[in-house]
Amino acid sequence: MMRAAVLRDRRIAVEERARPEPGPGQVLLKIRLCGICGSDLHLAKHAAEIAKLGEEFGAPPQDLSRGLILGHEFIGEIAEFGPETARTLQIGDRVVSVPFLLENGVPKPIGASVDVAGAYAEYMLASEALLLKVPDEVPDEAAALVEPLAIAWHAVAKSGLPPVDAAAVVLGCGPIGLAIVTVLKMHGVEGIVASDFSPRRRELATTLGAAQAISPKDGNALAAAAAASPGKPLVIYDCTGAQGVLGVAVRDAAAGTRIVVAGIAHGEETINPMLGIAKELSIQFVVYYTPEEFAATLQAVADGRLQWRPLLSATIGLNAVDDAFRLLEDPERHAKILIAPWSDAGLPA
Amino acid sequence: MMRAAVLRDRRIAVEERARPEPGPGQVLLKIRLCGICGSDLHLAKHAAEIAKLGEEFGAPPQDLSRGLILGHEFIGEIAEFGPETARTLQIGDRVVSVPFLLENGVPKPIGASVDVAGAYAEYMLASEALLLKVPDEVPDEAAALVEPLAIAWHAVAKSGLPPVDAAAVVLGCGPIGLAIVTVLKMHGVEGIVASDFSPRRRELATTLGAAQAISPKDGNALAAAAAASPGKPLVIYDCTGAQGVLGVAVRDAAAGTRIVVAGIAHGEETINPMLGIAKELSIQFVVYYTPEEFAATLQAVADGRLQWRPLLSATIGLNAVDDAFRLLEDPERHAKILIAPWSDAGLPA
Repeated sequence: MMRAAVLRDRRIAVEERARPEPGPGQVLLKIRLCGICGSDLHLAKHAAEIAKLGEEFGAPPQDLSRGLILGHEFIGEIAEFGPETARTLQIGDRVVSVPFLLENGVPKPIGASVDVAGAYAEYMLASEALLLKVPDEVPDEAAALVEPLAIAWHAVAKSGLPPVDAAAVVLGCGPIGLAIVTVLKMHGVEGIVASDFSPRRRELATTLGAAQAISPKDGNALAAAAAASPGKPLVIYDCTGAQGVLGVAVRDAAAGTRIVVAGIAHGEETINPMLGIAKELSIQFVVYYTPEEFAATLQAVADGRLQWRPLLSATIGLNAVDDAFRLLEDPERHAKILIAPWSDAGLPA
Repeated sequence: MMRAAVLRDRRIAVEERARPEPGPGQVLLKIRLCGICGSDLHLAKHAAEIAKLGEEFGAPPQDLSRGLILGHEFIGEIAEFGPETARTLQIGDRVVSVPFLLENGVPKPIGASVDVAGAYAEYMLASEALLLKVPDEVPDEAAALVEPLAIAWHAVAKSGLPPVDAAAVVLGCGPIGLAIVTVLKMHGVEGIVASDFSPRRRELATTLGAAQAISPKDGNALAAAAAASPGKPLVIYDCTGAQGVLGVAVRDAAAGTRIVVAGIAHGEETINPMLGIAKELSIQFVVYYTPEEFAATLQAVADGRLQWRPLLSATIGLNAVDDAFRLLEDPERHAKILIAPWSDAGLPA
C-alpha cells in the first residue's frame, strides 16, 4: 500500500491506495518531491468542466468519483523495474521525466486524469524510455522545478525571443511568470518589466532579474517597457490566467507586438480583431515543451545558468496539501510549494 | 481641374476637384487603373467609426464632410515632377508604389483618410522615392493587382508557409483569399482547400490552384484538409472578414494550427483561450507588406510566376463606382473590379 493525496469534489484528502505495479517498459518511482502547479489548482476547481470539454474533443469519459491523483512536477528514485525494461539506470537513481506515461506507445499525461495517477503520492509509475538521470550536483528542489522551468523555456522559445532583440513584459508573476523572468534573464534579455498586484511576487520578479516590477494599480507595464526600450519590438507574456487580460493586451499593445499566452484562463476571451490587424499583432498560445526542451532545461539547471531558488517557498507533506491549495489562492504568501510525500511537514505559519 | 469619385455619407459621387500640385519629392500621377479593395467597401460603410477608433489611438480628427477619395491599388504614369525630385524616371513612365505618401519623411496612407487622396481620380500625388517602374511586359491590369497580391504575399510569408511543409485552408475567397491561393500555388503548396459560400468564387479558387473548394454549407474545410494531407500541420487563412469565424477556427483547429487573420472583421471576436492553450494555436493578424515584399510581388508578376488574370472581373469608369460598391456586396457577381478613371465604361450587365 501507499499514501496518496486524492482530489475528489474540489477537496484533497490523503487515502491509502494500492502501490502500483510497473507494466512493460515502466518503472516504479519512489517520489522524492512534487511541485504544486497552477494547473493543479485549476483542475481542482474545474475538474468536471475540463473533463466535459475533453470529451467534446474526443477524450474518453472519466469517472471523477474514483478520485484523481495530481502531480506532474516530480523527482523520484527508481524503486522497481517492470518487465521489458533496459535497466541502464540503477535502482535508487534520482530521475525526472516529461510527465507522460507511454501506454502501447501512446503518451498519456500524468496527473491530469483519473486514469494516469500523478506524483502527489509515495509512489508513481513512469516510462523508462522517458527518464532522465538527475546529475548529482542538482538538488531535489531544483529537479522538481525543471518541469515549470521547461514550460517557461518553451514559452520563450515560441516567442522568438531570443534571438530577436525585443523588450519583454511579463504579466502575472506566479510560478510560470517568474520562471519566464528567469529564463529571459538567462538569455541576457535586458529591461524586463514584470507586473503583478502582489508586492511579494514583484519582489521575487526583481530578485530573478526583472529590471522593473510594477503593480497594475500603479502603472502600465507596456508603457514602462516602451519607455525603457524605445524603438524595440515588444513581447508580452500573459501569465495571469485572468480573463480579460488578452483583450486589454490586444487593445494596448504597440504595432508588431507578439503576445504569448501562457496562463490558463477559464471562460471566453473577447478581442477586437480590427486592432489586431491594424497593428499586425500575433498571439501564440503555449502549453508544453518538447522532450529536448525539457532536457535542455535540466542541463541549464545543472550548469547553474538558470536561477531557481527564489521560486521556492515551502516544502510540505501529503497531509498539508489540501490546506496548501487554499493558501495558494492568496498570492501574497507563496510562490512554488513542493510536496515531499514521505515527510510530515505542515504548512509554515 | 480633374474628376474624382468622392465618398461622403456612404455614397460615392463624381465631383470636379482641383488637380493636385506635387510638393517637394512628389510627383503627379495620371491614374491608368485603380482596383476596388474590400477595405474600400469597409471604409465606405464604417468611415465614421473607423475615424473615431483612429482618434482613440492618436490619429488627428477628420472632417469627413469634406469627402474622401479612396483608392490605393493603382498604376499611373508620371505626369509632372514636383520640386526636389531626382527625375531618374521619365514623364509618361508607368509606375506603381506602396500606397503611402511621404510628408516630411512620415509615410501617410493613401486613400484611407480625407487628408491623403487616393486613386479613384484622374490624377493623384505620389512620392518619387517609393515609385517602382512597371516592366513593359506587365499589362496595366496586372500592375493594378500588385498591391492586393502583395497583401497575400505578406500573409503567406507571415504564416511561415513555405518553407514549412504544411497544409493550407483558405476561408473566404474574395480577392484576398483568391490572391492567397495563387501565392500558395506559386510556392508549390499542394492540397490547398478553399472555402466560400459562392459557387463562382469556389470556381475561381480552383482555377487559381486550390485542390478542393468547399461550401461551408456542404462540408468542413478543416476536416477536408486534414483528410487530404494527413499528419501535416495546418495553416488557416481567415479571409472572410466575418465575425465569428476566428472563434470557430480556434474551436475546430487541430493542435499546432497557425491561424492567419487577413480579413477585416468589424466588432468583437470571442475565443476560448483554454482551447488555444491546449492546442498551442497561434493567431497572426496581418495587414501590410514591406516595400521589399511589394517589389518582389511585382517581379513575380513580371516573371509570370504569379497567376493573376482570373482575379479580374470588370473595368469601369468613375461614374459606375457607386453602383460597383453596391454590386460587390453580392459575391456571386464579381471578384476584382478595376476603375479606369479616363474611361466611360459602365458596369457589365
